[in-house]
Amino acid sequence: MNPEIESRFAGLEKTCEATWQSLLAKSNFVQAVLAGEFDKRLYAIYLIETYHYTLHNARNQALVGVRGKSLTPDYMRFCFKHAQEETGHELMALNDLFALGLEKSTFGLPEPLPATETLIAYLYWVSVTGNPLRRLGYSFWAENCYGYIDPVIKKMQTVLGLEPKQMSFLVAHAKIDEVHAAEVQRLILKNCKDEKDWRDLETVMVTSLRLTGNMLEEVFDEYKRLCHQGGTKYDFLNSLMLNPTK
Amino acid sequence: MNPEIESRFAGLEKTCEATWQSLLAKSNFVQAVLAGEFDKRLYAIYLIETYHYTLHNARNQALVGVRGKSLTPDYMRFCFKHAQEETGHELMALNDLFALGLEKSTFGLPEPLPATETLIAYLYWVSVTGNPLRRLGYSFWAENCYGYIDPVIKKMQTVLGLEPKQMSFLVAHAKIDEVHAAEVQRLILKNCKDEKDWRDLETVMVTSLRLTGNMLEEVFDEYKRLCHQGGTKYDFLNSLMLNPTK
Amino acid sequence: MNPEIESRFAGLEKTCEATWQSLLAKSNFVQAVLAGEFDKRLYAIYLIETYHYTLHNARNQALVGVRGKSLTPDYMRFCFKHAQEETGHELMALNDLFALGLEKSTFGLPEPLPATETLIAYLYWVSVTGNPLRRLGYSFWAENCYGYIDPVIKKMQTVLGLEPKQMSFLVAHAKIDEVHAAEVQRLILKNCKDEKDWRDLETVMVTSLRLTGNMLEEVFDEYKRLCHQGGTKYDFLNSLMLNPTK
Amino acid sequence: MNPEIESRFAGLEKTCEATWQSLLAKSNFVQAVLAGEFDKRLYAIYLIETYHYTLHNARNQALVGVRGKSLTPDYMRFCFKHAQEETGHELMALNDLFALGLEKSTFGLPEPLPATETLIAYLYWVSVTGNPLRRLGYSFWAENCYGYIDPVIKKMQTVLGLEPKQMSFLVAHAKIDEVHAAEVQRLILKNCKDEKDWRDLETVMVTSLRLTGNMLEEVFDEYKRLCHQGGTKYDFLNSLMLNPTK
Repeated sequence: MNPEIESRFAGLEKTCEATWQSLLAKSNFVQAVLAGEFDKRLYAIYLIETYHYTLHNARNQALVGVRGKSLTPDYMRFCFKHAQEETGHELMALNDLFALGLEKSTFGLPEPLPATETLIAYLYWVSVTGNPLRRLGYSFWAENCYGYIDPVIKKMQTVLGLEPKQMSFLVAHAKIDEVHAAEVQRLILKNCKDEKDWRDLETVMVTSLRLTGNMLEEVFDEYKRLCHQGGTKYDFLNSLMLNPTK
Repeated sequence: MNPEIESRFAGLEKTCEATWQSLLAKSNFVQAVLAGEFDKRLYAIYLIETYHYTLHNARNQALVGVRGKSLTPDYMRFCFKHAQEETGHELMALNDLFALGLEKSTFGLPEPLPATETLIAYLYWVSVTGNPLRRLGYSFWAENCYGYIDPVIKKMQTVLGLEPKQMSFLVAHAKIDEVHAAEVQRLILKNCKDEKDWRDLETVMVTSLRLTGNMLEEVFDEYKRLCHQGGTKYDFLNSLMLNPTK
Repeated sequence: MNPEIESRFAGLEKTCEATWQSLLAKSNFVQAVLAGEFDKRLYAIYLIETYHYTLHNARNQALVGVRGKSLTPDYMRFCFKHAQEETGHELMALNDLFALGLEKSTFGLPEPLPATETLIAYLYWVSVTGNPLRRLGYSFWAENCYGYIDPVIKKMQTVLGLEPKQMSFLVAHAKIDEVHAAEVQRLILKNCKDEKDWRDLETVMVTSLRLTGNMLEEVFDEYKRLCHQGGTKYDFLNSLMLNPTK
Repeated sequence: MNPEIESRFAGLEKTCEATWQSLLAKSNFVQAVLAGEFDKRLYAIYLIETYHYTLHNARNQALVGVRGKSLTPDYMRFCFKHAQEETGHELMALNDLFALGLEKSTFGLPEPLPATETLIAYLYWVSVTGNPLRRLGYSFWAENCYGYIDPVIKKMQTVLGLEPKQMSFLVAHAKIDEVHAAEVQRLILKNCKDEKDWRDLETVMVTSLRLTGNMLEEVFDEYKRLCHQGGTKYDFLNSLMLNPTK
């Protein structure tokens, strides 16, 4: 790795870290979890939104590859390979949701929250327009996030007494993503040729991470509304409180 | 395999065979090759058009996968995997073209012929609309075609004295496609559930094969125009006639 | 109009005429109509296919406008205006079909024939890729076609004894299209800047007209199959033969 | 208008008002303008971002119409008509920018800010997926916003001493949009059939207004960075400060 690329990559990591720290510090979702002030319904709403955006990740990843001629064959293959690997991951989030003790037949899955739909919309936009390298900015933080969210995951697990089959999405991703993360790094180092490539990638890294943070805040807002008011589309999750051992 | 599916699959193979036989019998391209009445310029125009449509195959294959929810995860993964494997294959056709003895710097690649663009358009349309299974109808014949076109390939090789590096697209595809063909068959048998599935798939099989036949005819028409009139966008190929040993 | 543009435009008209003459001379559909050897079922199948491709015309026209920056605002506005005017025209074809005496509740509309789907696919492809001017090549002949098909329309009307409400699509289009034709001519003259523009437009004019001719042939083939064999998806049209006065 | 629809429409207006009031109260952009604490550079950055998102409005509006069969012909026509009317409006924002006294040749237009790109992405997403009525939620507030932003516009005009030719976008939109607003209201009342329609439309109204608010905040953040630090992509706007009479 030449020193310039090395330095630019280090800059990307630093910006990623700073964005995470800012997000974690300000997040009501994260603060509530770390303080243990939540129950299964927060995790359930999180899983529902995770299902919604994950459903699109393989597809918007593939759409980068579809752009064709403007990509190297190497990057194009990565897009399709990565799309293949991400296919069906949303089902893990769904299985985790049911494993909390919900009967599939008793509810229709609520539609995505506005912040989730905004994140989904942005990832498609980034995938089909502008610099085709920039979706790597999303992969860069998404495949490297376990260092930042591990304490949150662990606290959730402890407080809610979750079994592995209730956490398959988060746990499985931590494993799969080690390999992905290395591939993403390789692609970035190989394909980013000039300052504009690095800047476009960094902008998407920061923006998609912030939009994910917004999604967590909206999950938390809905959870608070459910706890204090009810009359929300998540009322069916109150059944989770009837059986605290599950 | 239950007898009904077995019978329906046999019907598909029979229709495929009949469509091929009709195409081969009527094709001026095929007749000219088998009669040895052609030179490198016909092969060159064929390679140019092959480059053009092959450039899109990985992409329209991936677009089937992008349709998401209406697919089984298994079929969705196949789409992305197949897209990955097809990526860059157009470069083989391009390399074969240059290996005939053309200097890259002396010409711009002619744009696709109308029949080639029609084939490309149809494959995208089939990939993004209607029954998501129907693109398998294209794969079905395309991955199984070597039995039908082998005599044509062999005659080309003999008459033109082609070396392997001048035939990488056709030869490589014959090998790769044995595996693909088995996968395509598996996907068809697993996913075709009712008469409409089989009919949609068969329609696309027949139509895409005929459109490919139309492309070969247009290639042949352009070759004849080049031989008899000149003043075409393929005139640069006449340089291939100066060096008959290549 | 400068002489060069004038001459290029005259060339376009000449090619259009030649393509029509060749199509009319070879068309079994046209020959059968002019010879009076057909019945309402041929007209009905024609209306069904007309419904299918017309359903997409407003939409693929609008998609040219969506390409944005590469268009002049004047051309972009034309695209959206034309799309607005074409909206709902497919319903005329459908009304004409029902006005022949079919009960809406007794059949499901057959899906488009392969040749119709190929035409639709090509028009979308032309609208969303390549030179954004080229869809004008389709409009150019489609808005100017009544001179060529008038004898066919008149013969149909006489032989089948059709009332105006059974011919709204063909008759209405003849009127509407006079204005459109003038607009299309203005857009072509204003926007075609170089030889490539004229060539791209001419290629699409010729190709889309031929694909429409192919559609008519497939309509005729289905009509013959219906007359001689039956067991086709158009068998429900035989009810039209029970009431010859309608 | 039946009482139920009347009541639902009144609810929409009330939510719109509440969203605006919340946005205006929290907006640093708005507060700074009302306090007169800004200069031409803030207006210039606003115009650049307005150019960027307005460039897409005709196009995403047309894409709603392209969805076809799921729309009434009346709504489909509105989409194309509205698209036609919105075409080229981004040029007003650009002209206003140049009319501030910038030389076209001295700078490249900065790319959109992340919040602007997020808004653009969301509007495309809303236009091509989900309930086809929901983009009317964006039109609803966007065509009715002058009551809310009039004080902001007036203050800008006074403080910066802007001439009409420097405010064409904002002024022209106020006039055009009266007609649009009436059409949008008509379409909503005619097409919203059930609670889901109203809810989908309201969600998009609130979300797109908030995302526009986020865009204004990011404009303001960039303005503050430009004032205090420099070294931003907007440094070229400092030339506007050299000629305070313009």
